Amino acid sequence: MDLATRIGAGQGGFVLFAITPPRESTPAARLPEIARSTAERLAHLDLDGLVLYDIDDESSRNPTARPFPFSPTLDPAVYRAEHLREWQTPVVIYRAVGKYRRDDLSAWISEQDPRSTLTVMVGAASSGATPSVALAEAQAMREDLNPDLLLGGVAIPERHSRRENEHLRLIAKQEAGCRFFVTQVVYDVNAAKNLVSDYRYECEARGLSPVPVVFTFSVCGSMKTLEFLRWLGVDVPRWIENDLRHATNPLAASLEQAASTAIELIDYCRRLGVPFGLNIESVSIRREEIDASVELAAQLTAHLRRQPS
Amino acid sequence: MDLATRIGAGQGGFVLFAITPPRESTPAARLPEIARSTAERLAHLDLDGLVLYDIDDESSRNPTARPFPFSPTLDPAVYRAEHLREWQTPVVIYRAVGKYRRDDLSAWISEQDPRSTLTVMVGAASSGATPSVALAEAQAMREDLNPDLLLGGVAIPERHSRRENEHLRLIAKQEAGCRFFVTQVVYDVNAAKNLVSDYRYECEARGLSPVPVVFTFSVCGSMKTLEFLRWLGVDVPRWIENDLRHATNPLAASLEQAASTAIELIDYCRRLGVPFGLNIESVSIRREEIDASVELAAQLTAHLRRQPS
Repeated sequence: MDLATRIGAGQGGFVLFAITPPRESTPAARLPEIARSTAERLAHLDLDGLVLYDIDDESSRNPTARPFPFSPTLDPAVYRAEHLREWQTPVVIYRAVGKYRRDDLSAWISEQDPRSTLTVMVGAASSGATPSVALAEAQAMREDLNPDLLLGGVAIPERHSRRENEHLRLIAKQEAGCRFFVTQVVYDVNAAKNLVSDYRYECEARGLSPVPVVFTFSVCGSMKTLEFLRWLGVDVPRWIENDLRHATNPLAASLEQAASTAIELIDYCRRLGVPFGLNIESVSIRREEIDASVELAAQLTAHLRRQPS
Repeated sequence: MDLATRIGAGQGGFVLFAITPPRESTPAARLPEIARSTAERLAHLDLDGLVLYDIDDESSRNPTARPFPFSPTLDPAVYRAEHLREWQTPVVIYRAVGKYRRDDLSAWISEQDPRSTLTVMVGAASSGATPSVALAEAQAMREDLNPDLLLGGVAIPERHSRRENEHLRLIAKQEAGCRFFVTQVVYDVNAAKNLVSDYRYECEARGLSPVPVVFTFSVCGSMKTLEFLRWLGVDVPRWIENDLRHATNPLAASLEQAASTAIELIDYCRRLGVPFGLNIESVSIRREEIDASVELAAQLTAHLRRQPS
């Protein structure tokens, strides 16, 4: 069953791989080669879908200095349309809605084929920014213009640890049309289980069916990646920092930890009756970290296919 | 290799089961039957050792009301000597040193055969108490009177999360003669890994060999058990509380979580080169929770024997 049909039916059990489009500064002539190399790297994975992130300058989110300078990336919708036409599975296109003109966003929404495109809409990074299109407005545009286009929202377990209301935010997004959620990178398995658990029981109390929760995993194999993850708000545990500092094969440790966390979440969601998906990305652009994330996706896909939901 | 030889050689890979002696108020005539039933329940487990806790009234540790009233339990050394003589493996006897008269404690230390007895000495629960024997004094008595008697200390990952110096406390205990550590019940796998990681790298910096760290696990199958664990300072995650409230087979979820946490810690310690042991207990006296803890011990023993260190 393809990704859109699955999510449309409220079913999980799928695996995605997420990539960030190349920088805007990349010479146009190199883009086909980059896209081809990405597609080749992922071809053997038996993925249910690809995720394309939409990177916004999130420096308004965090007062501390960004670990490396913000560099604008290509519009994921344009990159997909121009360079990933051959990709076989549906693609989940992120839209940082505050970046776009109203007309452009509504045109894009209208043109999408809901069988091959899904979208995750993300609001502006902080309430200080005044985006041209607000998240609620973008959600309403989808509802009006292309109601079959499957909409996802972001879910942040760390925010649930601090404020204990992320499950209510998910339900509000669900009422605004979200049919799936994608977490930020998960390192704290209990924080993720707490969020899923609170979400599931709140759904039950309101007579709602839980929609698929997609857990995101990435390896962390360098101090740069660690700093960036922390800047993004991920609670990367200290033991990973220690492994990195002491070079005790941190990539292997990180890969094993991510796989173990994913399998624990799979088992937990199955028992709880919450549909789930997996999303693997490489936060880093270093070759060996990308390879380790691809290996993680291969392991998790094999695990999921062995024991289908 | 027996438990004392292993720990004496700085090696891990062993499994213990911990029990609390019966209450002092138990009719003496019932004690042999209780001891026999405990031994029968554990006989099939292929354990490396038994742990006998020494329960002190820890109400000075925590200003909030104890979930159920403190009830003094039999002296674990007496209970072992009088009722567990037939037990085949070495026994780790806890000593809440503040409970005992100096003469009685020194006599007990002198009399123990280090091949069959190990001890974990625990200081008074809070600095407000004025125990008759301080922990440092008890540690020195062992050094003088029976230096071959293997001494352990307690390790608390949650304290490391809050204060970030538990690894230094472990090293101070090691310098005072500790040859192994036993954690309180582990629910937060990252807190435990953070402690082991900081401990291992601090050992390396000081040219010390890490001693075995024994991770303790228990199922949590009732709200009473949950409250008691939290009162003891264990961060039991909210999803377990939700499962308990909604009766989604919480015992099965808790057993699976504990097994998964243990296996992740086993893999991590092996990679890191820190010797480890496992200790399984039932925090609850309810039959089904005890049975689930025995099942947990069976699963973990099988896992460890399949892939020996």
